[in-house]
Amino acid sequence: MTQQQRQALDELLRHGPLDIGGDVTEQRAIFHDMITSIPLPEDVSAKPGELGGVPVITVQTPDDDPSAVVLYFHGGAYALGSAADSVGLAADVSRRVGARAITVDYRLAPEHPYPAAVHDAVAAYRALLADGVPSSRIAFVGESAGGGLVAATLVALKDTSLPQPSSAAIFSPWADLTVSGTSATTKADLDPALTPEALRRRALDYLGHTDPATPLASPVFADLTGLAPLLIQVGSHEILLDDAVRLAASAGHHDVPVELQVWPDVPHVFQGFAAVLEDADRALLAAAAFIKRNWAR
Amino acid sequence: MTQQQRQALDELLRHGPLDIGGDVTEQRAIFHDMITSIPLPEDVSAKPGELGGVPVITVQTPDDDPSAVVLYFHGGAYALGSAADSVGLAADVSRRVGARAITVDYRLAPEHPYPAAVHDAVAAYRALLADGVPSSRIAFVGESAGGGLVAATLVALKDTSLPQPSSAAIFSPWADLTVSGTSATTKADLDPALTPEALRRRALDYLGHTDPATPLASPVFADLTGLAPLLIQVGSHEILLDDAVRLAASAGHHDVPVELQVWPDVPHVFQGFAAVLEDADRALLAAAAFIKRNWAR
Repeated sequence: MTQQQRQALDELLRHGPLDIGGDVTEQRAIFHDMITSIPLPEDVSAKPGELGGVPVITVQTPDDDPSAVVLYFHGGAYALGSAADSVGLAADVSRRVGARAITVDYRLAPEHPYPAAVHDAVAAYRALLADGVPSSRIAFVGESAGGGLVAATLVALKDTSLPQPSSAAIFSPWADLTVSGTSATTKADLDPALTPEALRRRALDYLGHTDPATPLASPVFADLTGLAPLLIQVGSHEILLDDAVRLAASAGHHDVPVELQVWPDVPHVFQGFAAVLEDADRALLAAAAFIKRNWAR
Repeated sequence: MTQQQRQALDELLRHGPLDIGGDVTEQRAIFHDMITSIPLPEDVSAKPGELGGVPVITVQTPDDDPSAVVLYFHGGAYALGSAADSVGLAADVSRRVGARAITVDYRLAPEHPYPAAVHDAVAAYRALLADGVPSSRIAFVGESAGGGLVAATLVALKDTSLPQPSSAAIFSPWADLTVSGTSATTKADLDPALTPEALRRRALDYLGHTDPATPLASPVFADLTGLAPLLIQVGSHEILLDDAVRLAASAGHHDVPVELQVWPDVPHVFQGFAAVLEDADRALLAAAAFIKRNWAR
């Protein structure tokens, strides 16, 4: 059953219209249509707002603990996606964690290149703290570019007066904008969603003349000392497998509590497909357990 | 409190008499005295026996589920340690898993070089299956060289008619007998227990003229396709940190379900110090939960 689910999802992604490296305007619309074709459960509430001048959507599910917040960062290679597109997965996280998710509409490239996304992430977190939510009751969650952005933001926080959040759960991070992991080639045929060429095009949009190895864009090259506990989940059918592995390895080297989970035979951000993939449900439950365990301390 | 515990343990190991690279006869006695200086709880039973011609000790704690077995492989760089020396940690595992642990007295180098240890491990597992314990109710656990041996044995099983066990939990594996991980140098000052020189001496004892990169001695170089789900735990104050990272990375690349946990600021096989280290207790609980989750499937 599970293997059938994995194959069906692979086919769906492989033959779908999304091309992460394609024309930004076209692909933003396709990304939106694809993601919002999955209907939201009726008990999910999504309210637009702002945090520190950054647009956000607050996503709630029944029985949320009002004292805690998941600060959520969507994917889309820094050029696609939006807070609105992320409501479904943010709601899945919210429900399992038992806390509202605030999903951040950080500015996108090429209109707003690096470091706009990092600035927006820090600004939203700063405002959340100013609103009275203690850092110990905030967890960061991010997927794909949003996962890399979570790690970069945690690094950026070290240069501010702001504390780390309680933990961060990172799904399939894009954490190396030089696209130099070995899985960029060894997993290219297996990955139904991403190509190295697509990522390189989007990296150029985001970075312009900035060195792609700059630590706040490519946190695999950052000093991760002092970061909050990390959970990193990745599929084995991803060209970004090595981004996850190297981010975890670097976190460990820098004495950060870190867990890496590799889920076999599933694609990029498989957690977004909990409706049709048992692995996604199990991964989200593991991520929720991790977040709650770190709140409890 | 936890940081105090970590420092006290570091001091204890740093100034203790154990020298993994020292004279084998002397160090076996020191290893034995050090480990058995921790008294066993009164409710632990340890009974010698054999499995497939290999001496073992069956370790039981109250409320063990008789249908399940942890097959346990001790550490000691393939030259030191014994099933008897491992009873304390095997009992800690047994208690948290809720199943008896059978700890294997595989033959040691230099008297019995590679592949004697792998042969003994396979023989013990084969006999356990022949005794009627299904593979789905067997988990492998190993620490240090025993952790590398667990991974090597899982690889060796692929060349037999034997099924994989349900899962394997591996603590601080020595999985690269070429001793070429970057942590062999970057963590040398922080590691209170091991030195690259000591490991190289023991690798020579174990391997003789065999290539130290041979996959059944150094499973970081093996094809891990088809292995049972793995949990790999390691401390960040270990020269073997990269062995754990690379074993996890390779498992992921080979589509094996794998979890890597890096525990900051703790030494080699910190799980052996649950009496004085909170991290050890938490790590053992996580390992037990992993084993039980994989039995349940």
